[in-house]
Amino acid sequence: MEQISSKQNKVIKDLKKLSTHKGRKKNSQYVIESWHLVQEAINYLPKDEIIRIYTTDDQYLKHGNDINDFKITLISDEVAQELSDTATTQGIFAVCKIVPVSFDENNLHGAWLLLDYVQDPGNIGTMVRTADAAGFNGVVFGEGTASPYNSKVLRSMQGSQFHIKVVKESLLKVMDAFDAKNFPIYGSELNPEAVNYRSISPANDFALVMGNEGNGMKQELLSKTTKNLYIPITGKSESLNVAIAAAVIMFRIKK
Amino acid sequence: MEQISSKQNKVIKDLKKLSTHKGRKKNSQYVIESWHLVQEAINYLPKDEIIRIYTTDDQYLKHGNDINDFKITLISDEVAQELSDTATTQGIFAVCKIVPVSFDENNLHGAWLLLDYVQDPGNIGTMVRTADAAGFNGVVFGEGTASPYNSKVLRSMQGSQFHIKVVKESLLKVMDAFDAKNFPIYGSELNPEAVNYRSISPANDFALVMGNEGNGMKQELLSKTTKNLYIPITGKSESLNVAIAAAVIMFRIKK
Repeated sequence: MEQISSKQNKVIKDLKKLSTHKGRKKNSQYVIESWHLVQEAINYLPKDEIIRIYTTDDQYLKHGNDINDFKITLISDEVAQELSDTATTQGIFAVCKIVPVSFDENNLHGAWLLLDYVQDPGNIGTMVRTADAAGFNGVVFGEGTASPYNSKVLRSMQGSQFHIKVVKESLLKVMDAFDAKNFPIYGSELNPEAVNYRSISPANDFALVMGNEGNGMKQELLSKTTKNLYIPITGKSESLNVAIAAAVIMFRIKK
Repeated sequence: MEQISSKQNKVIKDLKKLSTHKGRKKNSQYVIESWHLVQEAINYLPKDEIIRIYTTDDQYLKHGNDINDFKITLISDEVAQELSDTATTQGIFAVCKIVPVSFDENNLHGAWLLLDYVQDPGNIGTMVRTADAAGFNGVVFGEGTASPYNSKVLRSMQGSQFHIKVVKESLLKVMDAFDAKNFPIYGSELNPEAVNYRSISPANDFALVMGNEGNGMKQELLSKTTKNLYIPITGKSESLNVAIAAAVIMFRIKK
């Protein structure tokens, strides 16, 4: 079994490059961290999409039986911390192949969350996790939305990207597909025509668009929505966090 | 007007100490950052609770008229970044007096969110912001919950602590007060007796308890709840983020 104990090792330096967009694009690979995510990847990804598992002795002792079918590199605690995106790492990582999921407009059904220029990785990942829990079929990362392979997005998705479809696609194209099927497209922008989200009858097939944290949805998308929803704010707070607003609406309007 | 341009200045070093629990306790002061929060403090706090405002020239040019009633120190961009908790600071801060809000059980009414060992500052602050938006009267920070004066909690509360009551108190004591009034206390723990949160009729006066991210609510608190609520998870995700779960329940059960 391969072993690496130095942070200076070229393999480790190359792995660190996968934390950047450029590095991931060049190699078509990304890194997940923590036993929970590695286990989810093993359960849900085709075997050949998990390229190699990097683990400390400690984690190997705990999970060796579950990972022995894969290529494994044992790493020192120091190397694990170097690879980690967190202050204290568990010590187990998997390098996976980036296999883009395409948006299949011919087989369109279910509830979908569409992200328009949502920027905060934690919010994005949390929305994918919530969409999964609410029974949505997928999440579309539109233009300007942080990458689904960003380490913070991966961490806050908690593996939900393996349960539902996570797609990078033009939102205009996706909205046209919903339109062609006569499925409603709900925006989330407070404007004079917006309706209380509680007035929507729960359904199975629709799209919900969440916009940028500061600026909301782009105008060209707004014009394509069936209705815009708002959440009535009772107190004095000016707005809700975007992941919170998405959750409140998703759990209300999904049948 | 006082001016400070060096990070080494003792005043700045002392201010930095307010980012620790120990420093805040010793001085009974805390720091808020960003014009939004400073403005909210000016709007909602008694004037003598804002001890001093620290601002860059740039922010002073923008907001001078609004802050001239307060003691002001002009600081350099470098000092502002040193004081800041974020990667790029706006450059305006206020030092405020810590004035504990007591839980007034004789005047108990409205909806309250009770936090039991909730640890993540971002989650905690987001829950206060959401409680404000949902029309709650207050949030109780129970034992083991991060401090309401922690900089990340402050940042994610977005000023909602000035709109609703934020109280540090024993949850057992608070729950007894709800009990004495015959107001329901809802737990949030999946156990055999738990009921779907959608089955609860929206009301005005109740307590909702959210537990620790990993371990849920403490047993001694669970035994004091009227009912335990759960959110049915349709997809394959194992759980919801605690701030998301709190939001979904709060917006459903508050009239």
